[in-house]
Amino acid sequence: MTQLNRRSLMANTAAATAASVLAPAAMTIPAIAAAPPIGKQNAGFYRHKVGSMEVTVVTDGVRAAPVPDTFVRNQPKEAVHAALASLYMDKDKATAPFNPVVVNTGSKLVVIDTGLGPAMFEQSKGAQGQFQTNLAAAGIDRNAVDAVVISHFHGDHINGLLAADNKAAYPNAEIMVPAIEWKFWMNDENLAKAPEGLKGNFNNARRVFGALGNKVTQYDADREVVPGITAVAAYGHTPGHMAYVVSSGGSKLIVQSDVTAAIAVLFVRNPGWHGAPDMDGPVAEATRRKLYDMSAAEKSLILGFHWAFPGLCYVEKDGSGYRLAPAPWNPTI
Amino acid sequence: MTQLNRRSLMANTAAATAASVLAPAAMTIPAIAAAPPIGKQNAGFYRHKVGSMEVTVVTDGVRAAPVPDTFVRNQPKEAVHAALASLYMDKDKATAPFNPVVVNTGSKLVVIDTGLGPAMFEQSKGAQGQFQTNLAAAGIDRNAVDAVVISHFHGDHINGLLAADNKAAYPNAEIMVPAIEWKFWMNDENLAKAPEGLKGNFNNARRVFGALGNKVTQYDADREVVPGITAVAAYGHTPGHMAYVVSSGGSKLIVQSDVTAAIAVLFVRNPGWHGAPDMDGPVAEATRRKLYDMSAAEKSLILGFHWAFPGLCYVEKDGSGYRLAPAPWNPTI
Repeated sequence: MTQLNRRSLMANTAAATAASVLAPAAMTIPAIAAAPPIGKQNAGFYRHKVGSMEVTVVTDGVRAAPVPDTFVRNQPKEAVHAALASLYMDKDKATAPFNPVVVNTGSKLVVIDTGLGPAMFEQSKGAQGQFQTNLAAAGIDRNAVDAVVISHFHGDHINGLLAADNKAAYPNAEIMVPAIEWKFWMNDENLAKAPEGLKGNFNNARRVFGALGNKVTQYDADREVVPGITAVAAYGHTPGHMAYVVSSGGSKLIVQSDVTAAIAVLFVRNPGWHGAPDMDGPVAEATRRKLYDMSAAEKSLILGFHWAFPGLCYVEKDGSGYRLAPAPWNPTI
Repeated sequence: MTQLNRRSLMANTAAATAASVLAPAAMTIPAIAAAPPIGKQNAGFYRHKVGSMEVTVVTDGVRAAPVPDTFVRNQPKEAVHAALASLYMDKDKATAPFNPVVVNTGSKLVVIDTGLGPAMFEQSKGAQGQFQTNLAAAGIDRNAVDAVVISHFHGDHINGLLAADNKAAYPNAEIMVPAIEWKFWMNDENLAKAPEGLKGNFNNARRVFGALGNKVTQYDADREVVPGITAVAAYGHTPGHMAYVVSSGGSKLIVQSDVTAAIAVLFVRNPGWHGAPDMDGPVAEATRRKLYDMSAAEKSLILGFHWAFPGLCYVEKDGSGYRLAPAPWNPTI
């Protein structure tokens, strides 16, 4: 007969202490001075092999902010709150992790997206802007990076192109950007006619790329941006938003970028919800349904920029939506 | 219109290379010598706060071995293979992670279970026996450990009580063991009448505790083994198998030990399956159904010794079984 019961398991500390007499065991613990708590998390990187390629997911941290009432355009806030609670989250807090990734293809060292940048580290009291620190902890020298591939022009993907001194964070890398993104965001007519809420993003792109002398290489979809890494059009989140297929020796990893964005699991569970960060809700929805239907059928491993670190998951169909099945952490490589 | 399609997404490398002309972008990548791959995983520890207590999950590694045909007593091997495939695992490989945990209660530094021991490190080519190395990487000095609490007497939980030199790995710690386990496994009559397949476990317990001069403190269920850590009877896996409730300041973590064991997710999905490692299948089943029903209702966070690192999950009801919802990795603490 098992003795496990509600009283023993669910009692809170005070009740448990009151209810239970300390076993003789506890009384004989030697009175060694307690070791102080460490108070520091492990470094935020994780390695995964794709064929002969070495993939390192490197977290930039997590942002937690109040959920705006209009966070999902086609849902009342009550539905959003209920969904967050069902996902074990605070019902009115938007939690977004950031997972840039580094791929060593064997011939090129490639960074895909760059996080919010080191300037954000101090501003967020260390919660964000961790990418360059974690990159160093992962043993990767940013001076050795050959190419930085940008998926789209939101600040959490491009701001990390700059180091703390506002100079190139990857001084020896070619900066590769989607041609459609460049044409859209750097166009002055688009800026002039943009709604007020979007102007900041236009100006931020000018700030970041301007600091780099606007020296970028534009790329198109359905092409290898680097041998072994193919860009795949995944429009909707932004006009030129890209995903990637990293492949080597019959193995493959899909880097989805922001096919689901912000509180991304919300849109995995509810692919028909149109989040405020998606510029074109219906197109973004079509993109994610297509990607997830194909990936579920093929059991493809996907890396989500905004999924919980390390962000490597399978996607399963579940009712009218999807569900993430995280790949198990491998303590060796 | 999204351009994402099967051809672009699912093409293998060779086809993609053949099908696509390299964009001009790729041709202008500077010919910098490639950085070598690092070939080393991140250290295997993860910190989580429970009220004012600092919990550090420290992996001992992962064991992958062929699945014995009789791995689940009340299921044909075909059902087991199909379940493994549905969980994205090799259908005939048994993969078991090992997650000992360290709790700094503020007054005591406590290790719960110890892994397979450093002797296994070399034997497994580094795949297992990582606990003491990862403990050091986590900044925890084994000489500072005040108490080692053992959940049950299987080798993956007790062997790490010994260091590589076969002496106490935690020389200043009180070794605390379930009274029922001690009485069962250290009893010579039980050894004499044990089936051949179980004698090794009796002898291993004698080897390990003998090397420590049999100096242990026996504890009972429903008592605090250390202030803030309450032992909870969770019998079935072994006669005296224990789980724990770690609680502080209104927060709580359930340390389930081996309520699901070996390929643990298999028994989360199928709680009625009786795995070979569970000595009493029906009692082990009753224990896990009770724990998971209560935890699902209360949304309690559980640490599973044999769940994928870091092993901190919520358990959800799902049809006739359960499903794990891993807690998101927190890059700060």
